[in-house]
Amino acid sequence: MAGIKDKTAIVGIGETEYSINSGRSEVSLACEAVLAALADAGLTRNDVDGMVRFAEESTSEALICTTLGIPNLRFFGTVGYGGGGSHGIVAHAAMAVAAGVADTVVCYRSVNGYSARGGGRGAGDRANYGERNFGDPFGLLAPPQYYAIMAQRHMYDYGTTSRQFGAVAVAARKHAMRNPRAQMREPITLDDHQNSRLIADPFRLLDCCLQTDGACAVVVTSAERARNLRQRAAYILSAAQGTGFLPCAGHNRPSLAIMTQAQQTAQELFRVAEVAPKDIKVAEFYDHFSFFPIVTLEAFGFCGIGEGGPFVENGRIELGGQLPVNTHGGLLSEGYMQGLNHVLEATRQIRGTSTAQVEGADLVLSAGAAMEPSSAVILRR
Amino acid sequence: MAGIKDKTAIVGIGETEYSINSGRSEVSLACEAVLAALADAGLTRNDVDGMVRFAEESTSEALICTTLGIPNLRFFGTVGYGGGGSHGIVAHAAMAVAAGVADTVVCYRSVNGYSARGGGRGAGDRANYGERNFGDPFGLLAPPQYYAIMAQRHMYDYGTTSRQFGAVAVAARKHAMRNPRAQMREPITLDDHQNSRLIADPFRLLDCCLQTDGACAVVVTSAERARNLRQRAAYILSAAQGTGFLPCAGHNRPSLAIMTQAQQTAQELFRVAEVAPKDIKVAEFYDHFSFFPIVTLEAFGFCGIGEGGPFVENGRIELGGQLPVNTHGGLLSEGYMQGLNHVLEATRQIRGTSTAQVEGADLVLSAGAAMEPSSAVILRR
Repeated sequence: MAGIKDKTAIVGIGETEYSINSGRSEVSLACEAVLAALADAGLTRNDVDGMVRFAEESTSEALICTTLGIPNLRFFGTVGYGGGGSHGIVAHAAMAVAAGVADTVVCYRSVNGYSARGGGRGAGDRANYGERNFGDPFGLLAPPQYYAIMAQRHMYDYGTTSRQFGAVAVAARKHAMRNPRAQMREPITLDDHQNSRLIADPFRLLDCCLQTDGACAVVVTSAERARNLRQRAAYILSAAQGTGFLPCAGHNRPSLAIMTQAQQTAQELFRVAEVAPKDIKVAEFYDHFSFFPIVTLEAFGFCGIGEGGPFVENGRIELGGQLPVNTHGGLLSEGYMQGLNHVLEATRQIRGTSTAQVEGADLVLSAGAAMEPSSAVILRR
Repeated sequence: MAGIKDKTAIVGIGETEYSINSGRSEVSLACEAVLAALADAGLTRNDVDGMVRFAEESTSEALICTTLGIPNLRFFGTVGYGGGGSHGIVAHAAMAVAAGVADTVVCYRSVNGYSARGGGRGAGDRANYGERNFGDPFGLLAPPQYYAIMAQRHMYDYGTTSRQFGAVAVAARKHAMRNPRAQMREPITLDDHQNSRLIADPFRLLDCCLQTDGACAVVVTSAERARNLRQRAAYILSAAQGTGFLPCAGHNRPSLAIMTQAQQTAQELFRVAEVAPKDIKVAEFYDHFSFFPIVTLEAFGFCGIGEGGPFVENGRIELGGQLPVNTHGGLLSEGYMQGLNHVLEATRQIRGTSTAQVEGADLVLSAGAAMEPSSAVILRR
């Protein structure tokens, strides 16, 4: 079949304020972000005929349509697995448009992640992904705990250090300091990181992402139509999902330190895109913990397995470095929109409108990769 | 864009026993159905690279893959809205294959609907579709209640009768009596229907679907590949979803008796298929209540609005009639696999292997249409 390469584009992005107490419903937040994304694109609610959302939403696409007066969706669906699956919603949108099933698809995430504590009210997804059955009895009850043992293994196998995790956090904060949307804009140093308190060894406070109230949205349409819209189009060169083998029993894998499912995603992503990691100018990597950009660099082939720790040192992932990562500040410092805010930032880089703009950012990779199934997109100018 | 017409086919179907006490987990049921569907197609777990499921699952695609040893999924997602959305999982599979994102996509539903009571353990979907906020305070607490008022309105506006609802139930039972998989195979008459107890006026016991333990699955691949597989291919001529306007506030619509979202779905379905209702030889219609095939006939244009009651009388929807409906016995008499079993039966009709086979069944329509967003497919020989 023909494939989705270069057939679609992100033409609108929108978001609410990122806060710790929105004082509003998640539906209200979602609607604001969706309308902002449509306005950004120069489109209206009447143009929308498709919608994809996170399974972990308390809202539904039907409720958003009813609230906004969107007349009919020809395509709607959800993608699970939280941040790992996050870029899958963009992949599905691209697929629907490429297949001719919908013309204009909105992807959104809305969550009162802080004020409603831990994922928002009535998060939508209660499916059994399997891993908790095996982890809970051993005390892996909260995300810092069940991700910490992956980081521990990486340190053990490859000599990765806490200061290298710190380098990720510092880079994110430096980018966030330039970004007025970011929740955390106070400067931090490697020493601040080292002195922050342990949450789940080896993760310190500054290794852990924020919890955020807010919403964001992107609008996907055909490449052809994108040429006539308001913004410079961010063409979707490639979009991919991947489960790898044994994804659901996240800790039951050949090596805790190697993300096989992200490797599978990367393989498909680059196969479709017909570009290589060396061609990528900016990367936005899911960073619920500072450790994850390190293993994502490895899984996506920006460096060898075990080489992610040294890669992130010495400003290499900061603006001006070899491969700027999370130029918005990421989940660590901008806010926790569960990976969809990474797609917005990738779009801004393509447009040339990031507050940490990378010169010549003509190919930008954004990826959701965690313990679960993974997903990613490559945008091109 | 090119569209999905005729690009894909259902090449395998599989199901477990339909019972009231499976004694097994839903994961186990799902795996049996998926393996059966793959075996039916002459494919193996290694061929699978995509999976779509109901949002209302307690299982996840990752858990099924882990259990069966499916090496990697390049495409995965879910569709919400229960039965109304049910055919959306097939639409998504067709879209993924047509877009070249996956080669072989499994769609499945597994549920211990009887033994675990009312939808199965830990049903996956907790998103807020909105309508319950408005219905609950007025006593619309359970499905028979919130669908009953639609039937009441249909009776009031169009003179539809309880005996016409009964004709749907009797037709389904006649078909089920020929179907060894069906849970209910005792003959029933219109008088039996009229004498069955009221559940929520106007719905009597025999107007209400079963609750079932079991699972079923279908396998979708490209039309090209389908030609070389074991079974006669059921080509997906068209597949569509539709929300219509105000879908989520299901009772807040211009007329309670008219399913605008199903009309939108039908319009898209027939537009893509380039056929008309008169070309359809068999229809499988979501029948959680006997009333719904009546309004679905109307929404899909098999008769005028308000004419569905008379349409179903006098054996017109029975085998040998003008348009046989639910030739497997439907949710009313075969079992409650929430609409996916309708797709299996549509596939059997195309293959010529139904236990209530319609001669010359070269075009079969299967639809999920309820109060919520709707979805449908047309299969061709």
